[in-house]
Amino acid sequence: MAYVSIESQGRLARGRRAEILRSPSPHLKHFLTARDLDIDDVDELCQVADEFEAAPGPTQKFTGRTVALLFFQSSTRTRLGFEAAAVALGAHAMGMEDMSASSRSNARVRESLEDCAAVVSRLCDSIVVRHHEVGAAARMATMSMVPVINAGDGWNEHPTQALIDIFAMRRGLGTIRGKSIAFGGDPRGRVVRSLIQLLRFEAPREIVFCPPPRFDIPVDLLNAITENQIAYRIIPDIACALKDCDAITMAPYDMSEIGEPGSSSFVSPHETPEHYVITAEKIERTRSNALIYHPLPRFDEVDPSCDLLPNAMYFEQVRLSKFMRMAVLERTLSAS
Amino acid sequence: MAYVSIESQGRLARGRRAEILRSPSPHLKHFLTARDLDIDDVDELCQVADEFEAAPGPTQKFTGRTVALLFFQSSTRTRLGFEAAAVALGAHAMGMEDMSASSRSNARVRESLEDCAAVVSRLCDSIVVRHHEVGAAARMATMSMVPVINAGDGWNEHPTQALIDIFAMRRGLGTIRGKSIAFGGDPRGRVVRSLIQLLRFEAPREIVFCPPPRFDIPVDLLNAITENQIAYRIIPDIACALKDCDAITMAPYDMSEIGEPGSSSFVSPHETPEHYVITAEKIERTRSNALIYHPLPRFDEVDPSCDLLPNAMYFEQVRLSKFMRMAVLERTLSAS
Amino acid sequence: MAYVSIESQGRLARGRRAEILRSPSPHLKHFLTARDLDIDDVDELCQVADEFEAAPGPTQKFTGRTVALLFFQSSTRTRLGFEAAAVALGAHAMGMEDMSASSRSNARVRESLEDCAAVVSRLCDSIVVRHHEVGAAARMATMSMVPVINAGDGWNEHPTQALIDIFAMRRGLGTIRGKSIAFGGDPRGRVVRSLIQLLRFEAPREIVFCPPPRFDIPVDLLNAITENQIAYRIIPDIACALKDCDAITMAPYDMSEIGEPGSSSFVSPHETPEHYVITAEKIERTRSNALIYHPLPRFDEVDPSCDLLPNAMYFEQVRLSKFMRMAVLERTLSAS
Repeated sequence: MAYVSIESQGRLARGRRAEILRSPSPHLKHFLTARDLDIDDVDELCQVADEFEAAPGPTQKFTGRTVALLFFQSSTRTRLGFEAAAVALGAHAMGMEDMSASSRSNARVRESLEDCAAVVSRLCDSIVVRHHEVGAAARMATMSMVPVINAGDGWNEHPTQALIDIFAMRRGLGTIRGKSIAFGGDPRGRVVRSLIQLLRFEAPREIVFCPPPRFDIPVDLLNAITENQIAYRIIPDIACALKDCDAITMAPYDMSEIGEPGSSSFVSPHETPEHYVITAEKIERTRSNALIYHPLPRFDEVDPSCDLLPNAMYFEQVRLSKFMRMAVLERTLSAS
Repeated sequence: MAYVSIESQGRLARGRRAEILRSPSPHLKHFLTARDLDIDDVDELCQVADEFEAAPGPTQKFTGRTVALLFFQSSTRTRLGFEAAAVALGAHAMGMEDMSASSRSNARVRESLEDCAAVVSRLCDSIVVRHHEVGAAARMATMSMVPVINAGDGWNEHPTQALIDIFAMRRGLGTIRGKSIAFGGDPRGRVVRSLIQLLRFEAPREIVFCPPPRFDIPVDLLNAITENQIAYRIIPDIACALKDCDAITMAPYDMSEIGEPGSSSFVSPHETPEHYVITAEKIERTRSNALIYHPLPRFDEVDPSCDLLPNAMYFEQVRLSKFMRMAVLERTLSAS
Repeated sequence: MAYVSIESQGRLARGRRAEILRSPSPHLKHFLTARDLDIDDVDELCQVADEFEAAPGPTQKFTGRTVALLFFQSSTRTRLGFEAAAVALGAHAMGMEDMSASSRSNARVRESLEDCAAVVSRLCDSIVVRHHEVGAAARMATMSMVPVINAGDGWNEHPTQALIDIFAMRRGLGTIRGKSIAFGGDPRGRVVRSLIQLLRFEAPREIVFCPPPRFDIPVDLLNAITENQIAYRIIPDIACALKDCDAITMAPYDMSEIGEPGSSSFVSPHETPEHYVITAEKIERTRSNALIYHPLPRFDEVDPSCDLLPNAMYFEQVRLSKFMRMAVLERTLSAS
């Protein structure tokens, strides 16, 4: 996890890509990329999330502490999930659902991300940011006085979603060790990039990609897999994954909207080719026990006919997300 | 009041109009339509609202509990009113003021209402939704794990506003029994439909419509009135209502915007023909004691010259609304 | 500070510019204009802000009390600053980040500001409003049941920002008495108008304007200065201010966006002519000790190269703003 000490922030020039200093986890502050999390971080966060789930009710541990939720792109579960997590910790979530319109960083005034961070971080104890630009959260971290959590920066990363996915897969599978984990849909997404980084600690037997032919798997993903000596293969039909794999994490067929600003009129394509779609009929036909995960929203790549099958883990994944977000916020607010 | 048990939700097919199961009020969960409220529900909710008004200050009864306010259409009083009610109960309101832009159910990603409900209901304890489509709240109820409150679904219903109106009319009139209740303005609105349903318990002497000639009174409204053996008549001039009636509940002259999505550029007509407009001069001329109610916003059908007259109940109605919304949330959060 | 008693509100006609009654500060309610603040108000608010900064943590003094934040124009620090201040007082901030789209005062329904105030003030304990029209907050005050705080009304005033600026200048300079205070950038802004009013109590040695040649200094500002027997002069280059003045409060070169509605597509010009720009190089060359203030957002009139110099007070000003906003809210909520 990236660490920028308050002292060092001043020395980082503004307006260029942040050069984030590394630090051991005791000084951990920002959640910018899954690359900087180690196995102890993941284990500890999963354990704290377990404890939050088992707790009898909300705590008031962080009464009066504030988390600013700054969303330059649309969101349902990430924004409401962090707000629910904050409330369950006794903290307060403030912020904006559409920074690209309602804040001074909008198209009219164009306040820089660095100034926005310098300002907002003097009014809160933690910042959660989603933006369409790669590196947006890291840019904010260079000027922030408080920890910055990357809730999605364009095509780059979404590390807390990856933590949620690992937490939910450990729950569903018992352990990821030795298991075959498939990735369906667009392999270029930010959740995939963060999740591949975290899977290096989990020692799966193999990673199986089922990407639409139009999109290559990004080279950095393949490098991360091979560097960690994980086997991988590519399959042309999701039915193979249903037959062979222990878990499938799905994504929309074409995630091109992920790099679009909030104000863009881009509309995502919704017509997934049939052999990339999971249906109840295919699950039955393949007698699949594969658990199906999805960070959501889905388009049509997982048919609603699956929703009631024991394979469907994607709504349970949302329920579990609250506890992992509580763990992330607890760590962040304890350090700030 | 509509009831859908968690168990039964799964059996309801997604993507079609919900078939809501009925249940006795002990299991009452969703507030989807005024049709399912009985006289005991209304009496009890009015009594609880009375008690909240008399209470010395806010309670902390629901600390840590959350209400998600999901608004796909614009709102001032309903959204802020539910938030104020939540705060007064010690609960927390989260959500979005413009779901049609800021959520993943926006035009770009188009997450379904069912998925939205499945997700959000795993992050909160109650959902309040406004949408331009008839049946939107009922669709969300089919997949929600928590009670759904319909805060307006297109041309269909707005049951909590009707409860507020009944509460405020009982206050102003002492009792509605034996009274003449007029409806001014567009008779096709969602508040009228919900309110007519609740008036069946109140035994008014008659219902008087003063609709603009361009709009027929919906047949289902007239059926509901005659089924409940309430007399009704139609008058051509609001001055007659001022002379003859005990209370007049006003609505804009043309509510066509009610079925428009949040992103539509439709602008409501604001030029109410003179004999559908209430003015201080008309009230004086007719020596009217009629109490004037309005769910608001008004256009020009009630002139601001009336605001300071004892007839004007519409701002007091807003003040009372907070206590009824507290009663609705208290019932909802106690059951969830 | 403007005062409108609840009793008198009814007598004020709706729809025309409010005629605000004056009252001594014991009955102080609204914060509409800096003109109505006296020296005791400013001293007391600064002292309370000092105490809030020194306090060990958030209080729960105003638990269950609510502040409605109604923003018809974009905002980052004012909206989040009032929310942070509310939370630190134990109060709750509700409201909307884009009233011009999400409320019933939007372009489609066009509920009047007066009705909006009449309604919202029955659901909360204080209203903070920003709007593009001169007099918008005063119009809302005519119908509000609770204190209204003007958070910027078009080209007119922004009194709480001026209080923040005075508070931060007293901090940086020790005292403003006898000091030379410069104003850089567009002299037509609302913060300048409010701040000039408050400077009349501070007895600066002189006020120095460095305005772009395209904009005259508004006559009412010059009148306010001369009426209070403060010397002023106009200089053509910000380097002179760096050499001669104790503090410089900067503003963008062209603030024409300040009168634009939230929905306007107007884009502010961002290319400040070189001799109105403060850079680290100029500060070094002039050996300036001048403290640099800015209500922010900045465009390019203060170069980021200044951010780490001891002259830069603008981010510290944001940190201090929270305590002044707490003082304003505390006064407001104690009176309502």
